[in-house]
Amino acid sequence: MNDLAERLKAGERRALAKAITLVESTRADHREQADALLTGLMPATGRALRLGISGVPGVGKSTFIEAFGLLLLSSGHRVAVLAIDPSSALSGGAILGDKTRMEKLSMDPRAFIRPSPSSGTLGGVAEKTREALLLCEAAGFDVVIVETVGVGQSETAVAGMTDLYLLLQLPNAGDDLQAIKKGVMELADLVVINKADLDTAAATRAQAQITSALRLLPSHAKTVQRVLQVSALKADGIAPLWAAITDLHQAREADGSWAARRREQALAWMWERIQAGLRQAFIAHPVVRERLDATTTAVRDGRTPPSTAARQLLAAFQAGPFA
Amino acid sequence: MNDLAERLKAGERRALAKAITLVESTRADHREQADALLTGLMPATGRALRLGISGVPGVGKSTFIEAFGLLLLSSGHRVAVLAIDPSSALSGGAILGDKTRMEKLSMDPRAFIRPSPSSGTLGGVAEKTREALLLCEAAGFDVVIVETVGVGQSETAVAGMTDLYLLLQLPNAGDDLQAIKKGVMELADLVVINKADLDTAAATRAQAQITSALRLLPSHAKTVQRVLQVSALKADGIAPLWAAITDLHQAREADGSWAARRREQALAWMWERIQAGLRQAFIAHPVVRERLDATTTAVRDGRTPPSTAARQLLAAFQAGPFA
Repeated sequence: MNDLAERLKAGERRALAKAITLVESTRADHREQADALLTGLMPATGRALRLGISGVPGVGKSTFIEAFGLLLLSSGHRVAVLAIDPSSALSGGAILGDKTRMEKLSMDPRAFIRPSPSSGTLGGVAEKTREALLLCEAAGFDVVIVETVGVGQSETAVAGMTDLYLLLQLPNAGDDLQAIKKGVMELADLVVINKADLDTAAATRAQAQITSALRLLPSHAKTVQRVLQVSALKADGIAPLWAAITDLHQAREADGSWAARRREQALAWMWERIQAGLRQAFIAHPVVRERLDATTTAVRDGRTPPSTAARQLLAAFQAGPFA
Repeated sequence: MNDLAERLKAGERRALAKAITLVESTRADHREQADALLTGLMPATGRALRLGISGVPGVGKSTFIEAFGLLLLSSGHRVAVLAIDPSSALSGGAILGDKTRMEKLSMDPRAFIRPSPSSGTLGGVAEKTREALLLCEAAGFDVVIVETVGVGQSETAVAGMTDLYLLLQLPNAGDDLQAIKKGVMELADLVVINKADLDTAAATRAQAQITSALRLLPSHAKTVQRVLQVSALKADGIAPLWAAITDLHQAREADGSWAARRREQALAWMWERIQAGLRQAFIAHPVVRERLDATTTAVRDGRTPPSTAARQLLAAFQAGPFA
């Protein structure tokens, strides 16, 4: 394990890939090794820009990340791309399953691209991605992109583990309304209208609409939110976008909100795992297991008040394993 | 306690008020009595129409509930009104604090109006309201209205404990956008545009806008959602609204979704209480209490991975109280 940690810190991509496989494993002994590895690497983490990117299928995420990643490499950065793909359990993996999706980026030794695990609940997948992100940082990648397709709660998960969350939109009227309704727009630090070259008038209209819609959002009343146009295919607008990102970074470093967001995310992650672990322990408790079916039926049939049922099961759980 | 239960089942309003005070008490012995009372009364519950109503301040909720309640009384119903007021802890209680708000309804012996508890967390307040709702049913009220002002997550709480959730809106452009953004529109079974008499053109425009916006919501693609205009002040449109409610009731009884929603709500309530109870037990555990501060600091400072911290605290919790 020490050897793996050293090779990883030296930036060896194969060591990084192996470490991510270790944290993804569900075996108990692997889990212990992964915890030890992660804890040992913590001093080497935290130095990357963590960038969340999402957008509906068809918005051009791969093309965008390829263009964006290549620009970063050319200015001396090392870029890792991780993915949360909640659809993969159903469809067999829609995104990043095929590395040829980002051909030039994936072939460059200064980049690292990792497909998401192909199964598991969203909570589980996001958990592994969070740990993989720390490993990428320890391996010296200074920009880590976490990508997701807009399904379920995956945008919330990505926004909850990154410093900046970037929403890709099409220059279509109505696309922005969907994002507002789903609450995704509220999460975005930057909104990028991709494929702006296809219809410049529509892109400019969308930019104006989204800008004014964002002003209405209570969560963004005070922040300087940016809406930009790019054409990933022509690599247009990518450099100004990177400038906007570094501007936001500097402003938030200066007012302390950058570090505060990371602290909040770390604590929220810890409590999310605690809640999930408590529920698991509860369900596995022998007395709870014995009674849960009958209690559930009684609650469903309206014989036992739900609050009373909860108190009774909790009392059994807290009385110890064999009460 | 048996006496209280009998008087309550006979429809005595003072007994009902006393029982609600009992479930609201935080004393352990009261809690035990309340659990016994509720369990004994369960066979007498479940027979009311549970109607959730919300709307922003100024939408005319009191006037609406008064007009609506009086119509129901005149057609032979008995009406109870409960309130969830998440703002009360801060402001001292904005809604239902004063019974003169619904003067005629509150003076009628066939109605029962209960102000919300004046403090407590939203979870706690909603919990008590759920129990109070069961008590109102046992006391023979066949329409129970749960009212809330649109603050925080209170609309979700109300929609989660009622059969039908009715959203009151003003005939203003923009009001509907707010509701869509907050996700409240998605919860609504019926949308009622109040004060339609003030500007009939605006009300009709709002009705058309909301109707088409609702069609876009994935959750409502298949349901028959209704948007109606009323003027509570003139008691206009109240009878057609009641007809729409009974139509929805009958359709959902017929396809089984009415009973299914109640079963889901009861189970969700049970699990919500279990999760809250588990968290309480976790925080109170002696080893967790001893370590939580240091662990929280280590996670916040980036020294311990959040997932590892969670696993360590959970292991201490599960090892028993004095490990």
